[in-house]
Amino acid sequence: APPNPRAGQHLATNCAACHGSDGMSVDTSIPNLAGQHYVYLVQQLTAFKNGGRVSPLMTELARPLTEQQIADISAYYASVPIQVAKPPGSKHQP
Amino acid sequence: APPNPRAGQHLATNCAACHGSDGMSVDTSIPNLAGQHYVYLVQQLTAFKNGGRVSPLMTELARPLTEQQIADISAYYASVPIQVAKPPGSKHQP
Repeated sequence: APPNPRAGQHLATNCAACHGSDGMSVDTSIPNLAGQHYVYLVQQLTAFKNGGRVSPLMTELARPLTEQQIADISAYYASVPIQVAKPPGSKHQP
Repeated sequence: APPNPRAGQHLATNCAACHGSDGMSVDTSIPNLAGQHYVYLVQQLTAFKNGGRVSPLMTELARPLTEQQIADISAYYASVPIQVAKPPGSKHQP
């Protein structure tokens, strides 16, 4: 089935403790996921699931996820709309 | 020396081709770095540099970077102000 952000939002309640309910994490060693690219998120969750990327915690959390669930969670965080304000000290308009 | 976002912005011109000049990448398999957490970025660049995280391209790019340069680049992307609009379908206000 196509990725389902709504189902992903529900699944992501398990991720919110670290990554924040909207993907803006509160701990500077934990990445923000808000508005992150869908394909990248699928790749990283899959890499954590199969150990290609090393993080004991993330591997434990990703291991039980199905491909569909990985797609849904990734679609949710990718769907969180983020905007970039003018970067500090930048002359150009983004 | 403390992390220097301005020096990092200059160094990040080497990253812009993939990650975008303000950290919003144009390829969905390449992560956005805009507003990403400083500590996380330092950890990931360092992991790429020492091979703890696997990416031939990123390891090649990170290998020549000094700790100061890693800190400066990370400080730059972390300094890009991003805002989350109301996530789609979410009942709560972020």
